[in-house]
Amino acid sequence: MAPHPLSILSERETLLAKEVLLSSHPQEVLVFREIFLQEPPKHELLKFLEQEHSGKDISQITPPARLAKCQYDVIGRDKVPEYQESIVDISKKERVKHEIIGKEYHASLALSEFDTLVRVCEKSPEFQAAIAEFKLPESFEVVIEPWPYGGLEDTDENGRYFQGLIFAQDLRNKNPDSNFYAYPLPLIPVMDIHKEKIIRIDRLATGGKGDSLTGQTHSERVIDHCGPAEYVPELLPNGTRKDLKKLDVLQPDGPSFSVKDESLVEWQKWRFRVSFNPREGAVIHDVHYDGRSVFHRLSVSEMTVPYADARPVYVRKQAFDFGDGGAGNYANNLALGCDCLGVIKYFDGYTVESDGSVKKQPNVICLHEQDNGIEWKHTNWRTGRAVVARRRELVVQFIITLANYEYVFAYKFDLSGGIDIETRATGIVSCVNIDAGKTSDYGNVVNPGVLAQNHQHIFAMRIDPAIEGHKNTVVQEESHHVKMNPETNPRGNYYEVRQTKFNQSNWADAAPHNNRVFKIINESTKNKISGKPMGYKLVPPATQLLLADPDSLQSQRATFAHHHLWVTKYKDDELYAGGRFTLQSRTEVGGVGDAVARKDNVEDDDVVVWSVFGLTHNPRVEDWPVMPVEIHNIHLRPADFFEANPSLDVPSSKNCASRLVTNGRGKEGKL
Amino acid sequence: MAPHPLSILSERETLLAKEVLLSSHPQEVLVFREIFLQEPPKHELLKFLEQEHSGKDISQITPPARLAKCQYDVIGRDKVPEYQESIVDISKKERVKHEIIGKEYHASLALSEFDTLVRVCEKSPEFQAAIAEFKLPESFEVVIEPWPYGGLEDTDENGRYFQGLIFAQDLRNKNPDSNFYAYPLPLIPVMDIHKEKIIRIDRLATGGKGDSLTGQTHSERVIDHCGPAEYVPELLPNGTRKDLKKLDVLQPDGPSFSVKDESLVEWQKWRFRVSFNPREGAVIHDVHYDGRSVFHRLSVSEMTVPYADARPVYVRKQAFDFGDGGAGNYANNLALGCDCLGVIKYFDGYTVESDGSVKKQPNVICLHEQDNGIEWKHTNWRTGRAVVARRRELVVQFIITLANYEYVFAYKFDLSGGIDIETRATGIVSCVNIDAGKTSDYGNVVNPGVLAQNHQHIFAMRIDPAIEGHKNTVVQEESHHVKMNPETNPRGNYYEVRQTKFNQSNWADAAPHNNRVFKIINESTKNKISGKPMGYKLVPPATQLLLADPDSLQSQRATFAHHHLWVTKYKDDELYAGGRFTLQSRTEVGGVGDAVARKDNVEDDDVVVWSVFGLTHNPRVEDWPVMPVEIHNIHLRPADFFEANPSLDVPSSKNCASRLVTNGRGKEGKL
Repeated sequence: MAPHPLSILSERETLLAKEVLLSSHPQEVLVFREIFLQEPPKHELLKFLEQEHSGKDISQITPPARLAKCQYDVIGRDKVPEYQESIVDISKKERVKHEIIGKEYHASLALSEFDTLVRVCEKSPEFQAAIAEFKLPESFEVVIEPWPYGGLEDTDENGRYFQGLIFAQDLRNKNPDSNFYAYPLPLIPVMDIHKEKIIRIDRLATGGKGDSLTGQTHSERVIDHCGPAEYVPELLPNGTRKDLKKLDVLQPDGPSFSVKDESLVEWQKWRFRVSFNPREGAVIHDVHYDGRSVFHRLSVSEMTVPYADARPVYVRKQAFDFGDGGAGNYANNLALGCDCLGVIKYFDGYTVESDGSVKKQPNVICLHEQDNGIEWKHTNWRTGRAVVARRRELVVQFIITLANYEYVFAYKFDLSGGIDIETRATGIVSCVNIDAGKTSDYGNVVNPGVLAQNHQHIFAMRIDPAIEGHKNTVVQEESHHVKMNPETNPRGNYYEVRQTKFNQSNWADAAPHNNRVFKIINESTKNKISGKPMGYKLVPPATQLLLADPDSLQSQRATFAHHHLWVTKYKDDELYAGGRFTLQSRTEVGGVGDAVARKDNVEDDDVVVWSVFGLTHNPRVEDWPVMPVEIHNIHLRPADFFEANPSLDVPSSKNCASRLVTNGRGKEGKL
Repeated sequence: MAPHPLSILSERETLLAKEVLLSSHPQEVLVFREIFLQEPPKHELLKFLEQEHSGKDISQITPPARLAKCQYDVIGRDKVPEYQESIVDISKKERVKHEIIGKEYHASLALSEFDTLVRVCEKSPEFQAAIAEFKLPESFEVVIEPWPYGGLEDTDENGRYFQGLIFAQDLRNKNPDSNFYAYPLPLIPVMDIHKEKIIRIDRLATGGKGDSLTGQTHSERVIDHCGPAEYVPELLPNGTRKDLKKLDVLQPDGPSFSVKDESLVEWQKWRFRVSFNPREGAVIHDVHYDGRSVFHRLSVSEMTVPYADARPVYVRKQAFDFGDGGAGNYANNLALGCDCLGVIKYFDGYTVESDGSVKKQPNVICLHEQDNGIEWKHTNWRTGRAVVARRRELVVQFIITLANYEYVFAYKFDLSGGIDIETRATGIVSCVNIDAGKTSDYGNVVNPGVLAQNHQHIFAMRIDPAIEGHKNTVVQEESHHVKMNPETNPRGNYYEVRQTKFNQSNWADAAPHNNRVFKIINESTKNKISGKPMGYKLVPPATQLLLADPDSLQSQRATFAHHHLWVTKYKDDELYAGGRFTLQSRTEVGGVGDAVARKDNVEDDDVVVWSVFGLTHNPRVEDWPVMPVEIHNIHLRPADFFEANPSLDVPSSKNCASRLVTNGRGKEGKL
């Protein structure tokens, strides 16, 4: 049977695409970066999905062409790789599109390039000499933490660079997981990857408030004032606590969801597909509720993490974690009993090695149910009868590790037609060396000698709605104070609800003081009860936007981070809020800024909504050495989409596994 | 053994206070409203607590006087009750304070007054005649839903009134829980409770957009266009869903918490006391973490719910759910397996009947643990080693029912030193009759003939901090853009963190565009690592404030709802953000507005922080007939209070009860 058009490429399909590509480049050496599903053009996909939803057996539906997107370097005679992208039609075994990417754009980084940086540093006499200038304690070894180079400041420079943050690891622990971030060294080697050469070593200032932005103040014994900050349990000075008792989630009858074809999830009237790709990680497709279309595609589109240390080199600390390296590439292989509780379904992914061989990535997504307290309750005080339904949620989760930092992303479906997209930021905050006894305007001292720099995380979620079909309209709704007046507001208690339609592609910001919400509606529908068009609403989180100066490199690279909401007209392949190429970018190209500038019609049309939010993270000491999660959610909620609360038929049955505490000592009692 | 000074009054103590009071009023008839613990003056309480925390056996500490606050009516010769309050010293068996409350203030309502309204309506010929003007279908019976009267518009009037929202219940169901809110009748009887007489019947307009604010447009067959909206499972037309499988939370080794003296809770280095009173519900006291003082008292202080329907009578729909009737009085008696999962400890409360007898209120608070996903995680990508700790939370929960509406309140303690105060709004939205086919600017039609009116819920949480002691300072901290400049921001990536201290009592608003957070710090302390004062931060939720015109009755009654944050100097008995007396108030008296106006010093002093947030609720059809929870949280987080992430020692052990799904059909597999 043919795979569903939204199913990720199988190993066989991936290898087939590789073969087609190799035969298209018979004279050249190819270094593969990615091969993954090129989703069909929307009009073709919809033709298929319409038939699928009409109840037709999918094996009887002619699928759109099965396409593979291939990203690779072609190594020419000068040994300088040329980045190219091709689309291969897998069924026809032929290349259907071939694009040579201009030198002004850089391919996303491959992990192998990180390995190259480490190798080149280790062999570099300049780097070794720079390290030798420090008198490191005998038992310490240098650790190189590869980073993307950040934006290119110099308009002439156009190489492909990588930089390394440098730390020292205490070998006395004899533990490879001893936390080296506690010993930062004040230098950054910069490598030209094509030349495989360290082209520069940036020396870092280690001063504090009042010190110059560039002057060296540290001694050669640069980590003598630092100390350990271990987080692996076996290295904790007092071990782990013993009094946190077991809390088990049991589902004796199994989960309430089912999964078919490794992509189709059905749960409590929800029906959607899950896919995984190296850039976006887990993606949700074709979301229906009780047979009704709700969203076409939900994804985490981009994130930028700019650092606010004013000292020159740090403008380069600005990661685009989806565009620079690909969230899917950094996805954790999740483990049973660690990343979620209950009965769990894992999904696997594939990545491609530089020679085109395929590597299975097991457990990159997990799917499970969770209880989240009360969903609704009412007690009739006359009769004393309480009816209460619990809030069960279905969670599609993936976790990425980007060097020091981690993000937990979850799409959460609830029983009342709502969807949350949750982000949890955790991991180790990025840090640099600071002289003993000093404090800084650029961050907080979180361990002796360790400055955790102030930074922001700005996320963009891409929401491709399909509220009762693909022609939708976005409406901004606000609640406004009305001056007391005899005609419309005689007692002063009235407030006005105002709506403004987006007719051209545009941006908007959060305005919680006006209770600003955005409704995605289908103007051709009418709720039978309220008479209003059916819709979903998005409450934009009113978080701080990008702080960098508008003229700065950081700001120009991330137009998407300038506003909380962007409404664009759907265009095939326009998936990335920060543009297709972010690595070493100077400005955002082909991102939401450019999409909005087209001034497309977005009224009663195929629209896309991009929700941007973030956190300004001025680190606390408590964020060290591993940061407790900071949680953000965007809420998608039905707004006159249904004719009543859709969770009304959730049984309010008693959970019989719950137990009373019978005495104050915490001993378990009987029901 | 003497009860702890923060333990609620026992039944014996309550009865003793009653007896003292009766003997103080030998010639009069007393009608009791409330008797509950008058917490000791803070300086006396602290003297006790300091000794307790120093490790002294509490039976050896001289406790402050054990006081009972008594609220009651004294029925004089004219039969008109006079409201009085007394403080009784229980150990000494004597009254120590006696206050005759001026006629300009009204005691909180007693549920018996609601019963009186129902009785008076049923016997009122005027009311019965008004009902008879409608031609109700034969099988329908009138239901009277008592409400507080709201603010007094007329400056001359000063009676004690109650109003009734009137509905009809379909008796054909033969079910006392058939949802009568689906059949609203357009009239409101108003009762003078002292006269036990209906003094007026307000007729309600049922028109829509464009109709006059007062004109009658409905026919006598006023609910013929309405229809059922049942929520009790046995009345659902299609019953309840069958495919939601069991999800059990098991704690085979019992909970991790312990409870002593029915008030002292210890869990994961947290130690605090829980009490319960008729006004505030559950209150958290004397919060310590690992022996260090954090908060003195946390409580839900007030809430106002103003309705925005411009038609004249609705300015009176404005509940103060804590001041008008008392959240504790409305607390649900929670049931095992319904309101939370796992191993649960319940706390009981007491209420007092009008004759002074004591009624036990079982299970008014529940205490349990829950899992909330990942608390922190880091994977060392070099070694592949992932260390992950789960986020366990300890929840102190109480739920109140106010006629149609319910609120779920929870204090949630986490493993990283954080506390959330959560509110969930659920229950049945308040609604009125609307003519068939019409829509309204005042709300949304959620069922045929049923208009759910736009309204707001504005909550005030009272936070009495004690960060490393009782002398604290509140600092507003913001992150600001800095123009690119060669001296301090050469690359434009720098942003400035600015702090402003509160030195006089004052208010402030949320400003998420500036990432405004409030830090409560102890200026006499210094974090050993960062060098900054130890503190906790509060991120104020940037929700819409009160929309009513500042000159309106609704607005003047609720000064507290004008700003997101209030900082005042602690004063004994100043517990209620909206003032001591809210029932039928014309303005807020003795609330945070007045407290701030004192212009007290709040720098390095005993300060109180009041956090105000809310929801503007323009109902969706999905909020009917019972509304899915709308969840809000305020977050209290350590900020340089600890010297590292305090949850670092949480074991990252695998949960062995988790199971794999082995096939797509949801069958449970083995680990």
